[in-house]
Amino acid sequence: MSPGRTEAFSDGVFSIAATLLVLDLKVPAANGNLASALAQLWPAYASYAVSFVTIGIIWMNHHAIFAHLRRVDRPLQALNLLLLLIVAVIPFPTSILATYLESGHDQAAAGAVYGLVMTAMGVSFGSLWMYVLRHDGLRTTIIPAARKRALLLRFAIGSPMYAAGIGLAFVSAKLSLLIYAALAVYYLLQPLPAEIGDPRGHLDDAGST
Amino acid sequence: MSPGRTEAFSDGVFSIAATLLVLDLKVPAANGNLASALAQLWPAYASYAVSFVTIGIIWMNHHAIFAHLRRVDRPLQALNLLLLLIVAVIPFPTSILATYLESGHDQAAAGAVYGLVMTAMGVSFGSLWMYVLRHDGLRTTIIPAARKRALLLRFAIGSPMYAAGIGLAFVSAKLSLLIYAALAVYYLLQPLPAEIGDPRGHLDDAGST
Amino acid sequence: MSPGRTEAFSDGVFSIAATLLVLDLKVPAANGNLASALAQLWPAYASYAVSFVTIGIIWMNHHAIFAHLRRVDRPLQALNLLLLLIVAVIPFPTSILATYLESGHDQAAAGAVYGLVMTAMGVSFGSLWMYVLRHDGLRTTIIPAARKRALLLRFAIGSPMYAAGIGLAFVSAKLSLLIYAALAVYYLLQPLPAEIGDPRGHLDDAGST
Amino acid sequence: MSPGRTEAFSDGVFSIAATLLVLDLKVPAANGNLASALAQLWPAYASYAVSFVTIGIIWMNHHAIFAHLRRVDRPLQALNLLLLLIVAVIPFPTSILATYLESGHDQAAAGAVYGLVMTAMGVSFGSLWMYVLRHDGLRTTIIPAARKRALLLRFAIGSPMYAAGIGLAFVSAKLSLLIYAALAVYYLLQPLPAEIGDPRGHLDDAGST
Repeated sequence: MSPGRTEAFSDGVFSIAATLLVLDLKVPAANGNLASALAQLWPAYASYAVSFVTIGIIWMNHHAIFAHLRRVDRPLQALNLLLLLIVAVIPFPTSILATYLESGHDQAAAGAVYGLVMTAMGVSFGSLWMYVLRHDGLRTTIIPAARKRALLLRFAIGSPMYAAGIGLAFVSAKLSLLIYAALAVYYLLQPLPAEIGDPRGHLDDAGST
Repeated sequence: MSPGRTEAFSDGVFSIAATLLVLDLKVPAANGNLASALAQLWPAYASYAVSFVTIGIIWMNHHAIFAHLRRVDRPLQALNLLLLLIVAVIPFPTSILATYLESGHDQAAAGAVYGLVMTAMGVSFGSLWMYVLRHDGLRTTIIPAARKRALLLRFAIGSPMYAAGIGLAFVSAKLSLLIYAALAVYYLLQPLPAEIGDPRGHLDDAGST
Repeated sequence: MSPGRTEAFSDGVFSIAATLLVLDLKVPAANGNLASALAQLWPAYASYAVSFVTIGIIWMNHHAIFAHLRRVDRPLQALNLLLLLIVAVIPFPTSILATYLESGHDQAAAGAVYGLVMTAMGVSFGSLWMYVLRHDGLRTTIIPAARKRALLLRFAIGSPMYAAGIGLAFVSAKLSLLIYAALAVYYLLQPLPAEIGDPRGHLDDAGST
Repeated sequence: MSPGRTEAFSDGVFSIAATLLVLDLKVPAANGNLASALAQLWPAYASYAVSFVTIGIIWMNHHAIFAHLRRVDRPLQALNLLLLLIVAVIPFPTSILATYLESGHDQAAAGAVYGLVMTAMGVSFGSLWMYVLRHDGLRTTIIPAARKRALLLRFAIGSPMYAAGIGLAFVSAKLSLLIYAALAVYYLLQPLPAEIGDPRGHLDDAGST
């Protein structure tokens, strides 16, 4: 199978999951002070923004991986479907976190649920990445062994940080959300996926190895 | 008509129907124990996962079929529209099944409704496939008669299994859902559509016939 | 502007509007007989199917028109945006029609509203078509004057039939829905847009004029 | 990174955000006069139309900018993600504005919130544009310095008009909505983005400078 249509379906799920997040923003009843009612919704805005940007980043990195592919096999198709299943579910824990932070009730559990789904997404994305790194025949690019180890290490570091957010939720769900915000900003700024996204760069590397 | 834009519209419907499934996951009211409330929602997660993966598989197989096409005629367009109409409706029986399994009320009927829509989707997909197999002029590939018979037989076997799930719902709706989960895993792992998805393979076959 | 991305955005709106129709199918409360509750929802299924197929047909014809285009100018962009605005609103009158047919209350008004939006869509689509027919520089194809007249006449006949459905709603909203179903089936089966969709056919025609 | 997939994801968000607006149109309860109930919903239709057309215009201009790009770097990716985050949130203030205009309660605040999001979108889009203008290496086109200044000035004029709508909301939220409608019509009719959208035109300009 060619990667093109897998990307089209994936782009669809990423963009719809991101855009459906807005449905969690509930219009306050038209009988009180709108400004103060909207101010109390800050957890909804914060979780909307963190989830939206996280989905956007996963999509960018997904894009960077698929730019390397020349074909998609069945296991990769299944791993991708699993990742999309988790990405598509993100509006649910986002809504849970916003609702429970607003009410102040059972915040730790809500933060842990959000963290669990974020971690599942991270692990699922990492598995996809690892699979692509390990199957040279799927890629258009040659990646030298040293770089592969560096890329795998990077994955090995990222997932525990996502998982740490789950534990942190039992201290403070707000702090946990802040961790996911920080991870989103970090992954937005760090340049690694961009390097992976340039097939010629890797081919040059390989040539000089 | 070229297949390209039919695929674009189809990809849209597949990915949106799959992603809308998340709207059936309802946030528990913020006044009880979140963990136990979420645990009771297991039918919603199970039906979400089965429906999502089933839509994903139908989409992959749809992709495999369209990779063979060089043009789309009116009857194929109509068959495709019928398939999309059924795919787009899947969030509705999924939500019915989840709601009735959670409440424990009228589960057999809910399972049967879910099975009916799944079967309709299977038959609709099979009809599309059969139409493409029978009209050589629509394809870029030549498929030998023996392989066509094998492919048609495969379709003839799949649909009764989908239909059997309807009857099984009257024994146990949970068992019926398990059948659809098993069918999803089976179709995810079995290699047939990948063969159909490789035009050159079929052309080679044809040449050696 | 090239037609490619206008098509991408249009495909998005068509497929999302069609798929959002499922949100109008409401799960019956889990406290009665599910089968009979679902049977009473027939107006929702009927209006879902008519709206879905109508959107599908408009999309196919939209596709057929865009297959002729080599560029998109500002007025065409604006006409297309107007068409998309109306297509995207279709889930609203569909939901109105289903709700009022189910309740039996104020059915004539509900049917008329549905008919109004359908007519607006028909007129908007017709205007787009007319604009494309009249501006030869936008197309890759040459259409002889006689064929243009025939195509314009076809448009002139279609819109009054859509409009007739509005009046018919005051006799019977169900009959009115049946008219739109019949129009959908008619446009699905009639071969005209397929001819327009083949640029070479038109060029040959033009050459023989 | 190539601009292609960034456009695909962006097209997805634009078209979904525009189409989700329809969910704000609520079916009146089937127990009163439908025609008069629908007539009272005019603020919902007006804000639907203004938001839909505004998203459509931002998308057209986004298209025009991306037609110039030969690659997308990280900062541009981040600016684009920020723009999409704001575009995807538009159904929320649109729903607020419609709800509060219908109820007549706290209209100034609702209009100001709508204006704030519109202004944020305008500033975010302007920043994207400015970034593209200032980084010649990202574009396929050469834009002479004088034209760059004119294009930047245009941006500098547009944003204050969006911002003026916020202040105007405290006079009249309806008047404020009218301003955004007027801005939408203005940007729909004015030809500038079309010029930017033609790379050859700019190259010719550059050649004659």
